[in-house]
Amino acid sequence: MALIVKKFGGSSLANAECLKRVALTIAKAYSEGNSVVVVLSAQADTTDDLIQKAKEINDTPSKREMDVLLSTGEQASAALMAMTLDNMGLPAVSLTGWQIGMNTDSDYGSARIKSVATERMKAELDRRRIVLVAGFQGVNKFDDITTIGRGGSDTTAVAVAVTLNADLCQIYTDVEGVYTADPRLVKDARKLDEITYDEMIELASLGAQVLHSRSVEMAKRYGIEMEVLSSIVDRPGTKVKGVNKVEHTKISGVAKDTSIGIISIVGVKDEPGVAFKVFRVIANAKKNIDIILQSVNHNNLNDISFTVAADDLDSVVEVLEKNKSVIGFTEIKTSGNVAKVSIVGAGMMSAPGIAATMFEALYDVKININMIATSEIKITVLVNENDADRAVTALHQKFFD
Amino acid sequence: MALIVKKFGGSSLANAECLKRVALTIAKAYSEGNSVVVVLSAQADTTDDLIQKAKEINDTPSKREMDVLLSTGEQASAALMAMTLDNMGLPAVSLTGWQIGMNTDSDYGSARIKSVATERMKAELDRRRIVLVAGFQGVNKFDDITTIGRGGSDTTAVAVAVTLNADLCQIYTDVEGVYTADPRLVKDARKLDEITYDEMIELASLGAQVLHSRSVEMAKRYGIEMEVLSSIVDRPGTKVKGVNKVEHTKISGVAKDTSIGIISIVGVKDEPGVAFKVFRVIANAKKNIDIILQSVNHNNLNDISFTVAADDLDSVVEVLEKNKSVIGFTEIKTSGNVAKVSIVGAGMMSAPGIAATMFEALYDVKININMIATSEIKITVLVNENDADRAVTALHQKFFD
Repeated sequence: MALIVKKFGGSSLANAECLKRVALTIAKAYSEGNSVVVVLSAQADTTDDLIQKAKEINDTPSKREMDVLLSTGEQASAALMAMTLDNMGLPAVSLTGWQIGMNTDSDYGSARIKSVATERMKAELDRRRIVLVAGFQGVNKFDDITTIGRGGSDTTAVAVAVTLNADLCQIYTDVEGVYTADPRLVKDARKLDEITYDEMIELASLGAQVLHSRSVEMAKRYGIEMEVLSSIVDRPGTKVKGVNKVEHTKISGVAKDTSIGIISIVGVKDEPGVAFKVFRVIANAKKNIDIILQSVNHNNLNDISFTVAADDLDSVVEVLEKNKSVIGFTEIKTSGNVAKVSIVGAGMMSAPGIAATMFEALYDVKININMIATSEIKITVLVNENDADRAVTALHQKFFD
Repeated sequence: MALIVKKFGGSSLANAECLKRVALTIAKAYSEGNSVVVVLSAQADTTDDLIQKAKEINDTPSKREMDVLLSTGEQASAALMAMTLDNMGLPAVSLTGWQIGMNTDSDYGSARIKSVATERMKAELDRRRIVLVAGFQGVNKFDDITTIGRGGSDTTAVAVAVTLNADLCQIYTDVEGVYTADPRLVKDARKLDEITYDEMIELASLGAQVLHSRSVEMAKRYGIEMEVLSSIVDRPGTKVKGVNKVEHTKISGVAKDTSIGIISIVGVKDEPGVAFKVFRVIANAKKNIDIILQSVNHNNLNDISFTVAADDLDSVVEVLEKNKSVIGFTEIKTSGNVAKVSIVGAGMMSAPGIAATMFEALYDVKININMIATSEIKITVLVNENDADRAVTALHQKFFD
């Protein structure tokens, strides 16, 4: 029998009815003889409600205290699920981050996992209990509570799976798996049976919100097989693994991400070290930048443009303005009305003409491309936000029909 | 400068506005140079909401999981208060039960405190931080979360005060102190400046809901001075201490308690061991009984009557019925429409005629007495519930006017 780690998100745990449905899924795996560990997010809206409470008190609440506050949401979820399973006659035990020895660094709000202890979880599994782990949270070396950032429960699940050397890590979502495009947008979108870690990482970072890339990166590093599947429909989902054994088209999906902003630093000197200075100050502020474009301009002055998460737009601009004298620039321009549209596929590099086909598809529907970025397994274009849906549809038609 | 432990209840922490008011009280003590530890309850309604959530899932939720669930309320309170103080520029740190080493036994839901560690709290106080402790909760030897029962935050406060050898343990409430009677009921009720531990214990167990007797018992055992005072009005409250240095009337207060029920076991045999059997099965079910009356009856059969907390009425009857063959009785009668009315005072035993005066006062207003119980410092009568308020008023007039 297998050791399976399952993770359920907040919307699938919203109320007693939802908890019961999830419990049936857990019960099935357990009654088949498997050892089952379940990682739970906070119930829908709980985290947002707690953030709201904090903001009413303090515009910039201490990150340490924010973690103490937010971690209660997942703790409550785990306890409520234990009660639900108990009601069905199944033995279960809830465990918090500190109880499972989820050790992290002290970067409150976005801590990195350093290690997970096995003793407590193994002891409970040996007693044939279903182990319910509060996701998203850990504890640092000072015994202070930490949280591991957005998408943290996915990462908790993979970390637990790695530690226990689980056979499978199943991430339950509100979709049935990973699709060739967003099925709400593209009616011909097809569910993939399998996808490689690398493809999934690209898709995740490109806005396909089924999995957080951080968790997939960890699964890849330790060779943990993941599965993305529905918390509602009992059907196989999409397996995420090292090698894609299923033959498929050269590209595996089309994704869009509208929650980005673009920042242009206008009039920086055309001399060595400028780009370094720009991206160092942003990195020091712990903000991620994405696509970068540097264009040579007149009078030995350049423009540097790059994309950031929409949430980070204001704070990155603030950081840049604060360092204006160090960096040296004329002005900063921003726009939030942009979207990234990408095609992803492990077979892409060995198939010539993919990029050309992509640009042709966009040209056919008269969509202007603002920036282009490529990697081994993806091509991303930046388009105006109100062109994004048309772009996804056009690309999906071109590559999958 | 002093080391002061303060405890605030849920209604005084209900929202951002309330938290700010409490923070000002804390700030004052801190800015006067004192070391300050604050014990916090869950915000108003939080605990009831969580209980409601659990009951929707499971009629009889596991006590272990209930403790995991409920303890989140106090944890959130402590974090929110830290943010409030931080917003005022005051250094504060929240700590949970396990973080302060609040070690308890494993009687989930009503665990007993075994020890409290000092290291973490002392280290934080040494750094001149205000220490915010999540009340009501602890951790057992298995590293599982426990709660210490109703009124637990009062007890947490006293236990922390004992451990840190605090100079004073202040319990903030929605009244200004301990009164000679309930001020909402008796308009002439007077606030006491001081009261002895023993008087306070009697008043607490008699329904004066300002303090839980368990916390006062602990304070008495370790000689910790307590003060009951208002969370709203900045005025001295009532000191609870070993010796009452202030001269006062022979009785210190009149109290009523309507949340009781009476159980009569009819037709038990008049032979040794019957009372033992009755109260052993109730004690095994961890239920407290209060006033006991045994009346000799005809045919060598007795009745045994006693009072219990209203909440326990059904479960005690159930336990008795289950043990009917062991105990041997004819039938059980119950009533919830009774109330205890008591007068309390350390000077009572040395003042003859107090009991007679009490019964006279009740006779004057035509109130029938069902049962009578006395101790060193109190006299309690059982009356019909709808006579209770009139009884309190009559007694207060007799003794205090």
